[in-house]
Amino acid sequence: MKQVRGLSRRSVRRRTGRVLVEGPQGVREAVRFVPERIRDLYVTREAAQRYADFVGPARDRGVFVHEASEEVLAAMCDADTPQGTAAVVDWTPTTLAAVLAREPRLLVLLTHVRDPGNLGTVIRGADAAGADAVLVSEGSVDVTGPKTVRSTAGSIFHLPVVTGLDVAATLTALDDAGVRRLAADGVGERTIDEVDLTTAHAWVMGNEAWGLEPDTRQACDDVVRVPIHGHAESLNLAMATTICLYTSARSQRVP
Amino acid sequence: MKQVRGLSRRSVRRRTGRVLVEGPQGVREAVRFVPERIRDLYVTREAAQRYADFVGPARDRGVFVHEASEEVLAAMCDADTPQGTAAVVDWTPTTLAAVLAREPRLLVLLTHVRDPGNLGTVIRGADAAGADAVLVSEGSVDVTGPKTVRSTAGSIFHLPVVTGLDVAATLTALDDAGVRRLAADGVGERTIDEVDLTTAHAWVMGNEAWGLEPDTRQACDDVVRVPIHGHAESLNLAMATTICLYTSARSQRVP
Repeated sequence: MKQVRGLSRRSVRRRTGRVLVEGPQGVREAVRFVPERIRDLYVTREAAQRYADFVGPARDRGVFVHEASEEVLAAMCDADTPQGTAAVVDWTPTTLAAVLAREPRLLVLLTHVRDPGNLGTVIRGADAAGADAVLVSEGSVDVTGPKTVRSTAGSIFHLPVVTGLDVAATLTALDDAGVRRLAADGVGERTIDEVDLTTAHAWVMGNEAWGLEPDTRQACDDVVRVPIHGHAESLNLAMATTICLYTSARSQRVP
Repeated sequence: MKQVRGLSRRSVRRRTGRVLVEGPQGVREAVRFVPERIRDLYVTREAAQRYADFVGPARDRGVFVHEASEEVLAAMCDADTPQGTAAVVDWTPTTLAAVLAREPRLLVLLTHVRDPGNLGTVIRGADAAGADAVLVSEGSVDVTGPKTVRSTAGSIFHLPVVTGLDVAATLTALDDAGVRRLAADGVGERTIDEVDLTTAHAWVMGNEAWGLEPDTRQACDDVVRVPIHGHAESLNLAMATTICLYTSARSQRVP
């Protein structure tokens, strides 16, 4: 139990290469998408009935399923209410090269994202929009942290997430791979509705508070803004990113 | 100070008709948009310099500006870090009739929204998308709560927010006013990209966990879904709402 609880610390996650997934939505998606990476699945007796849809399949796939009391589960977890289940999952990082080798059409690069909830929500939004991967720069919040993993609602197991990237090198690699780099920034002259989004591209997003670094913005192929029609100063990062990605998805998918 | 702190309780807000606005973004927008409703503005000596852009104008408009220490401000506020400023503002509710009298083109009706952060984020997104008002049903989280107000980032002063609405009566009133009612729901046969969004309409959104009540969905003119292109089960409420509203804004504004 102590070992599991330790996964709320980044140093322990790094050393062990494991992450803790809390709650039924995340555990279910781990069972569906990466059962071979699940080390241990914990579930209360009561919840085992409620979550038969994935506890049964998990056992069938050879996952170690342990019965745990509510108290033990709560002590393991970061969430106030893990809702009766949690799992320890191997974190297998992927690389930018692997992502680019699959000729992606739609990507997002988050630079210096600091809020775990924002990062998780962006991963969920990118998944929903059908993006090929989420790229996260160095100096960002840890994608394997409990709050980020929870906020993805299982999407962290649905699409590749590359972390620790150098921004300048990533922009160069994207260019070399024929992926247009679109800086999302309020200073953009054109809006997301006024640029061609049909070809392969990556949305490049800035930090929640200070936005994009000028060097990053200038290295991109275009600077594009989400239009603000009312009096709001801006949208939050997760909303702006999801709107950009959905606008792209529409452009790329409409026949 | 105790009186201000009391505003974190709904009963006190109801009795006094006042809300507490924490942090510079919210206070700034209150000064810009509703200075006559500000009862008191608190700011630390240090922050008064940093926020000269609105502290000066507040004084010019007759707002009572008080210097407060960091400790007093922290004790007043719900936020861990009120960032040096807060204000007590009169909450002046508006009505559905007043909103409809102005012939709105784009509205959102939230039914049984429960999370304060979601509600605040939707209000911010609705503002950004240029919606005419946000309608909130009875049985929803209190819009004047500190976390909701913070999450609006000042947008709560930018557009009308009507609360405590009966869902069925509101749907009837919208129909009578010639506003189409679009239920946003994953069961919709058509996506947001496949329906006509050029005429006046209201997006009708369900609860975070259980979605729309069947009765509500059936009372709407159309059921429409946000397309999910990847493996995500859904989007969160704030993101789904903002995508719907931005799709509407594009349809209504493109020449």
